Amino acid sequence: MAKRTYGEIAGFPPGSMFADRRALYDAGVHRVLQGGICGGKDGSESIVVSGGYPDDEDYGNELIYTGHGGRLPDSDVHVADQEFIVGNAGLARSSTDGNPVRVIRGAGGVPDHSPPSGFRYDGLFRVADYWHATGRDGFRVWRFYLVQDDQPELLLDDEGFGAPGHRGPVDRTQATIQRLARSTAKAQRVKALHRHNCQVCGICIETPAGRYAEAAHIQGLGKPHHGPDLAGNILCLCPNHHVMFDTGAIYVDHGWTVRYSANDEEIGELRRMPSHVIDVTYLAYHRMHVVP
Amino acid sequence: MAKRTYGEIAGFPPGSMFADRRALYDAGVHRVLQGGICGGKDGSESIVVSGGYPDDEDYGNELIYTGHGGRLPDSDVHVADQEFIVGNAGLARSSTDGNPVRVIRGAGGVPDHSPPSGFRYDGLFRVADYWHATGRDGFRVWRFYLVQDDQPELLLDDEGFGAPGHRGPVDRTQATIQRLARSTAKAQRVKALHRHNCQVCGICIETPAGRYAEAAHIQGLGKPHHGPDLAGNILCLCPNHHVMFDTGAIYVDHGWTVRYSANDEEIGELRRMPSHVIDVTYLAYHRMHVVP
Repeated sequence: MAKRTYGEIAGFPPGSMFADRRALYDAGVHRVLQGGICGGKDGSESIVVSGGYPDDEDYGNELIYTGHGGRLPDSDVHVADQEFIVGNAGLARSSTDGNPVRVIRGAGGVPDHSPPSGFRYDGLFRVADYWHATGRDGFRVWRFYLVQDDQPELLLDDEGFGAPGHRGPVDRTQATIQRLARSTAKAQRVKALHRHNCQVCGICIETPAGRYAEAAHIQGLGKPHHGPDLAGNILCLCPNHHVMFDTGAIYVDHGWTVRYSANDEEIGELRRMPSHVIDVTYLAYHRMHVVP
Repeated sequence: MAKRTYGEIAGFPPGSMFADRRALYDAGVHRVLQGGICGGKDGSESIVVSGGYPDDEDYGNELIYTGHGGRLPDSDVHVADQEFIVGNAGLARSSTDGNPVRVIRGAGGVPDHSPPSGFRYDGLFRVADYWHATGRDGFRVWRFYLVQDDQPELLLDDEGFGAPGHRGPVDRTQATIQRLARSTAKAQRVKALHRHNCQVCGICIETPAGRYAEAAHIQGLGKPHHGPDLAGNILCLCPNHHVMFDTGAIYVDHGWTVRYSANDEEIGELRRMPSHVIDVTYLAYHRMHVVP
């Protein structure tokens, strides 16, 4: 599997123009010379919107993008169903992983939102939803609802992992109350380390797009708690235990035992990894401020 | 328990002015004559921000509000810890339930954001977070981070339940990817009917603020699926099964059996209530378009 590069590419901010697909490729903005989707089942990092699919809908900061497959080479006509593989599965995976997708528009797209010639990088979008439908040619097409991201800085961490583009304050409002939305690069690594198994109960949510877990910042990221985006401040949790942790229904005690806050009853020991060192300072903050 | 009225009060849009607490009370905007929080452990519907608490922070569209209790009558000085009861527990409950809070500002607050005299209704806010800390007087205070809501129309349903204020298109982007955020009135009723037990596994997430579940719109609300906000299009699910349903990892078949989509293996029968009639049309839409 190719190593994916999510987020913005250094030196190519939104609005950057490219003469052709080769220029896009050389810049690393869209790292395949053919095909609208750059990605595989582990995730898709960029798409080119250029009007090739009659089912595409482009509204500027939102677009409904048709997946790939089902067409003969060099043809616009569908002759088969699109399958949930390669870039299609990858866009779904980027959605559940909370990774952004670079959107590049070509001259062939909707006039209001497309460049007059060549290609333009238009920024980072999130895959807010995906589903399948019957396309205009009568075959199954996968459709992806992408929404422009207003907070690309969340992708960066203090090591510059991801894309070394712009950086700004993290907005907790957006960062923590969304589920299928954003992950920081650090959060992604913690989840991968635990193979998306919940550190409380050990389960992993299996989805058609792959394994799913949530990264819980122990001391909340950004406002109002101003916790840092560091692996030591992150737990990998299933959605149920994420809700319980965030509301103070459960906590981790001094000896790594997870307990219900209502009666201090033991649930079990927090599942830990030698390569993921949790900073107990943050667990103390959680016990001190979040548990009633 | 008093019947709560969440959302905007008809005839009193944001910016409405009131001479005194009695006028606020008579309008139904803040339905207690004394106290900054109108609510109980079942939820809090409105708060008055008037500078009484030195720990309050008001940034306009965001504010950090101090809970009530711990002070002697007619005194600003804390003499005891604030407890997680009444209006404090209610604001937490409004957070986990996804209900909005009416924010009223009084003349005594931060000059930039407060009316010159009397009281002003400033719109609906969401309780994005809550925690406790040691206040300036050395006692425990509960703190609530409220963020102004940009989509109050989500509160309304086709029966006008909730507040018959303004209505607008529902934005799926916000509506479905947030967890501790918004509920429609219809969604709240479906969750209450099932006592917040998941219709797939029967569990309920117990939090310090009360029972927690999520309302899953079977055919997605608003863009891009344009499903309706009707009880027949809503399931009450735990967060884990909500993720699995939304990603098509599970589905409900013709005979109400819930199955894994990977192998069609049976999980169990969907837990139903005679008073909550699910429209199978939407389940068919989910099988047809969301399950790979």
